[in-house]
Amino acid sequence: MDLNRLLRPKKIAIVGATEKETMAGFASRMFIEQCGKRREDLYLVSLKNETVFGIPCYHTLSELPGTIDLAVLCTPKQTVAGLLEEAAQKGAKGAVVFASGYGETGKEEDKKLEEELIAQCRRLDLALMGPNCAGFLNFVDRVFAFGFLFHARESAGRVGLVSQSGQVCMALMESEKTSFSYVISAGNCKIVNIEDYLEFLVDDEDTRVVAAYVEGIQNPEKFAAVLKKAAEKKKPVVVLKAGRSEKGSRAAASHTGNLSGSDKNVDAFFRKFGVIRVDDLEELLSVCTAIATLPVLPRSNKLAFVNISGGETTISADAGYLHGLKLPDFSPETAEKLREVLPAFATAQNPMDLTGGSNGDTFERVADIVLEDPGIEMLITSLQITKKISDITIYDFLNGLIRHCEKEQKKPVAVVPLIESSREEEVLERLRAVGVPILPPPHYGYRVIKKLLDYTDYLETMENRTLSIVTKTEVCGKEPVKTALSEHESKLLFQKFGIPCPPEEIAETEEEAVQAAAVIGYPVVLKIESGDILHKSEAGGVIVGIACEEEVRTAYRKILENGRKYNPQALIHGVLVQKMLEPGLEAIVGVTCDPQLGPMILTGLGGIFTEVFQDAALYPAPLNQWEAREMILSLKGSKLFRGYRGKPPLDTEALARVLVQVSNLAAEYKDTLVEMDINPVFVYPEKEGVSAADGLVVLRGKP
Amino acid sequence: MDLNRLLRPKKIAIVGATEKETMAGFASRMFIEQCGKRREDLYLVSLKNETVFGIPCYHTLSELPGTIDLAVLCTPKQTVAGLLEEAAQKGAKGAVVFASGYGETGKEEDKKLEEELIAQCRRLDLALMGPNCAGFLNFVDRVFAFGFLFHARESAGRVGLVSQSGQVCMALMESEKTSFSYVISAGNCKIVNIEDYLEFLVDDEDTRVVAAYVEGIQNPEKFAAVLKKAAEKKKPVVVLKAGRSEKGSRAAASHTGNLSGSDKNVDAFFRKFGVIRVDDLEELLSVCTAIATLPVLPRSNKLAFVNISGGETTISADAGYLHGLKLPDFSPETAEKLREVLPAFATAQNPMDLTGGSNGDTFERVADIVLEDPGIEMLITSLQITKKISDITIYDFLNGLIRHCEKEQKKPVAVVPLIESSREEEVLERLRAVGVPILPPPHYGYRVIKKLLDYTDYLETMENRTLSIVTKTEVCGKEPVKTALSEHESKLLFQKFGIPCPPEEIAETEEEAVQAAAVIGYPVVLKIESGDILHKSEAGGVIVGIACEEEVRTAYRKILENGRKYNPQALIHGVLVQKMLEPGLEAIVGVTCDPQLGPMILTGLGGIFTEVFQDAALYPAPLNQWEAREMILSLKGSKLFRGYRGKPPLDTEALARVLVQVSNLAAEYKDTLVEMDINPVFVYPEKEGVSAADGLVVLRGKP
Repeated sequence: MDLNRLLRPKKIAIVGATEKETMAGFASRMFIEQCGKRREDLYLVSLKNETVFGIPCYHTLSELPGTIDLAVLCTPKQTVAGLLEEAAQKGAKGAVVFASGYGETGKEEDKKLEEELIAQCRRLDLALMGPNCAGFLNFVDRVFAFGFLFHARESAGRVGLVSQSGQVCMALMESEKTSFSYVISAGNCKIVNIEDYLEFLVDDEDTRVVAAYVEGIQNPEKFAAVLKKAAEKKKPVVVLKAGRSEKGSRAAASHTGNLSGSDKNVDAFFRKFGVIRVDDLEELLSVCTAIATLPVLPRSNKLAFVNISGGETTISADAGYLHGLKLPDFSPETAEKLREVLPAFATAQNPMDLTGGSNGDTFERVADIVLEDPGIEMLITSLQITKKISDITIYDFLNGLIRHCEKEQKKPVAVVPLIESSREEEVLERLRAVGVPILPPPHYGYRVIKKLLDYTDYLETMENRTLSIVTKTEVCGKEPVKTALSEHESKLLFQKFGIPCPPEEIAETEEEAVQAAAVIGYPVVLKIESGDILHKSEAGGVIVGIACEEEVRTAYRKILENGRKYNPQALIHGVLVQKMLEPGLEAIVGVTCDPQLGPMILTGLGGIFTEVFQDAALYPAPLNQWEAREMILSLKGSKLFRGYRGKPPLDTEALARVLVQVSNLAAEYKDTLVEMDINPVFVYPEKEGVSAADGLVVLRGKP
Repeated sequence: MDLNRLLRPKKIAIVGATEKETMAGFASRMFIEQCGKRREDLYLVSLKNETVFGIPCYHTLSELPGTIDLAVLCTPKQTVAGLLEEAAQKGAKGAVVFASGYGETGKEEDKKLEEELIAQCRRLDLALMGPNCAGFLNFVDRVFAFGFLFHARESAGRVGLVSQSGQVCMALMESEKTSFSYVISAGNCKIVNIEDYLEFLVDDEDTRVVAAYVEGIQNPEKFAAVLKKAAEKKKPVVVLKAGRSEKGSRAAASHTGNLSGSDKNVDAFFRKFGVIRVDDLEELLSVCTAIATLPVLPRSNKLAFVNISGGETTISADAGYLHGLKLPDFSPETAEKLREVLPAFATAQNPMDLTGGSNGDTFERVADIVLEDPGIEMLITSLQITKKISDITIYDFLNGLIRHCEKEQKKPVAVVPLIESSREEEVLERLRAVGVPILPPPHYGYRVIKKLLDYTDYLETMENRTLSIVTKTEVCGKEPVKTALSEHESKLLFQKFGIPCPPEEIAETEEEAVQAAAVIGYPVVLKIESGDILHKSEAGGVIVGIACEEEVRTAYRKILENGRKYNPQALIHGVLVQKMLEPGLEAIVGVTCDPQLGPMILTGLGGIFTEVFQDAALYPAPLNQWEAREMILSLKGSKLFRGYRGKPPLDTEALARVLVQVSNLAAEYKDTLVEMDINPVFVYPEKEGVSAADGLVVLRGKP
């Protein structure tokens, strides 16, 4: 959907204009005050008022002398349908609806009203923002259609923001650190979707970084496509996504009626596409400020910390460590050059304390030298820039830093003071002018730096990834009928996709069991074969280490007896005779299907490691060998794959292949697969492969 | 040491007074400007100047007309020794020395100078602050002896700060959110120790919360005693301790010459005494601000979040979850009462969105109702209070909140806005007046709330703990000669302290081995017995599952042969014949000795769990059964003790007993124990105990 007609209109009508302190009044006032020179393009429409803030009003949209592009409806919901018809007749292709009381209330009548609104907009070909929104601010063309008061901003910035909460837009605009290209309060966004806004901002040349507060993903395929485009354009997308917690999901549902989805799946989805996910507004703001201000992003985790006191040097080094920042030693050449410019007390080491004997000149020269070191990619200083700076020596250091940055600056510099986030405005402005952001203290500032490093890492490896997701062809709203395949049926399916399984056969009689064992070769395992008995061990349906014919016979009888006792109704197909596998590292591979994001592939070490230590890797299908390997390496337990305690390294490649095969299976069965598990899959030493010891596939539909 | 003579002097001489922009100049100026009315008690001493800032100077200390209590030396280090003699003659019992270039440089000559300074102060009975310090500010009596410029502060606050960095003092004073009772820049603190300052602040009635930036612990026993006193007085001690990282430790060492010690041990030490440990300055400041402002601390993790918009409600709920904050549902009675005051759109649930239809009155009544709920202990709101508030409706809500707080307030309230940390000063002041702190955004604000909750939890259980540590009677500076006991020797020591071990005997001949096995009962394990072969399995020195005499004989011969091959020089005492234990959950128990903090007791699950997943609990000796139990329960793997996957719960009490026994052993052997390990100790089901399967004790000294 082309959103220029909504977000970049020429002629605008504000309907319901007033001087009152309401959203309608704020919208009228802020437009007039801040976009004054464009008044000839603005029509105010009010049934009651002759003038608003000195501007004559029209009584109805129909009365307007010419056509309009955008109608901003500040009126109650009963009036909306009629006004939209009028607006469309006047040529409007876009509309903003502030009114709430639609689908978000959860009431049937309101949901119905929302559906009617959607249908009406389709019919009229209207790009509608809202309902239940606060409108938007376009700082590029200075078009304001926003229902809150806000501080004047003289110039457009580089952050494009879309939010499903108007208050969040307001909160972010309270900070002076960031300027915006667009601020969009999208509301329920049931006509123009959140994905449409994201696409507009990803395409927009004036927007350097896209910021979003998202309560629910609406069109997953579109979301994925937009994120792919952003990744390819290397335009960072920073998302605060609701639903980390059950309480947060509940609050989001009653706010804009959007379901926030399984949070771990969202995390995995974002990881695939390089989305920078943040956890609160200050973090959203800080990441965007850093990206919008820095001329280049840091290329790798090789930072230099330079400070003016020993205490700050120590504290920032410790805090940096806690946030995963790395401070490599300087090269001998760098250290040598530094010694020439540093005071006698100071040590030429990273992190560096310039000490009391230094000044702004020292700082400038140190910055020059340090950033020439090929082993250093970014400089961070903790200069205490607050709202009222009492230590006047700070200014001298600051000037030194600015002189450094005024030279050709190939590597980024940031200031992360150790306290406060209020800053002297002039200093903020001077540093911004030379491409240096001042970030909040470490729990935000260093976290932000780490996220930038992760993002540039992502860009480095982006082309190795499959930038798509698998979504269902048809979606059935009802809870499906599910069928669990038996172990053997599951394994047949695995084998179809190339997943290594041990030799095994179904035996329907004792004699068949004996023959099968002879063919397969001892030792064997016997397991009950029934789709009705999923917990085979619990049912006494598994006997291992069977070494001879006699044992096969005993085991066969025992298993059938146990099975019948455990579940007299169970349909028992016989007994599965399986080659007893050599023990290996026990891993698990599984698939769950996210209703929005499609099949999610999971792997981890078995049992306790996944359940108690929650050490699992999750990634959306489809995935390739490179992505599968990354999943395995992201496990804490991946140390066990690299040759732990003198054991040989394990066949990571073979396990990765299974992940890819499972992903292929999930993609082919996308419309019917409910879930599946290979638990355990034994992983053997390098080049010795893996083997699926047990497995379970659940499909939708009747057997 | 009584520090009143240093920190609460009546008559003060500033030596080296000047109008220049140096520490001496700043100290002179700030004293005169801000403590003007006390000028009759202040002497300025300057060799060169007749007057400084209009006040006549004396040329030497000897010229002063009367006695002094405190001499503030702003002069170079060469002059210090002579001036201290003069000061002492004039009756001074306290001195501040700004000069640096002592032990912190690491040079031998400077270290020697520091030792002479220490000796001189002892001889003259002088409480000396520094050297290499920036002095102190006593806001209670308004005595300023501080070498930096700072903003005027009208009144004394409730935070007492001691810091080993002057710049850190400065940084903390830049914020307007906190007022101080004392600010002490302690420098190298080699005469008056960091522990002396802490004790002063813990004792001081004007100080509600003690804040400290500590680079190195100097007197561990005193530190422990001061912390015990603080815990008993329920006076919170908030510490930013250097040394989280290797780079931070190095920076601290070159700053004040203090070694920061093993960080995990410091963590464990602090945990025992309820120290609130923070990770950066903003966190230090925020925790102190919260404690100094709140009339009562929150009693348990039962919070209500009340916000004015849906977006903020969702974001704060998610962020609260990430920081471990809990939002219980309101009681049905509370929900019923809330429904009467809430607008129709709003839902009476926690977290609560007051929605657009509400106002300050709504907020007041909601706060009243919510905090009457016996299941809620604190109210947190995210009202966006920034430096320039553009949303004027905020003030109405704010007034509602203040009206609530003006009533009898039994439960705490805090504001945690979602962005910025700059705040409108008048709002800050009005909220502070009713006991409401405004904290930084969630990564700080919620973290702070969680730390307060942990602290009040600690106070609840404090009396269950042993508030002391075990320190060496004599400390030997050199690396000691170490002796490893053999497994059997180690077990004999374990048994002396009541630690359950399997039946075992040393066999020096094959016959003895056979006899021992018969007495102990099959199956048995045979292990090589030699203090020279610590990695017994690696040496082929362990054979398990021996079921009969014949197997004993074969095993005995094989083990001796393997041992001789592995280490021809090894002194082999024979073979240990041990009852083969039933398998149980494998845990480890260990002791390492911190050079400062004494024996540290460690426990965890064996092998991978400790090494790969780093799931271990650490606690300083001595410990009691309650503390030992807490250690075990703090493990992530403690789920395995509670009956995992249908298995019976395990004997946690028995493992806890072993921890106590090991702590007793460590305490008795405090001067000689280097380290010890029980690895593994098998843990059996409840009431079935534990058994030390293998163990190693290393003592100092020759065998």
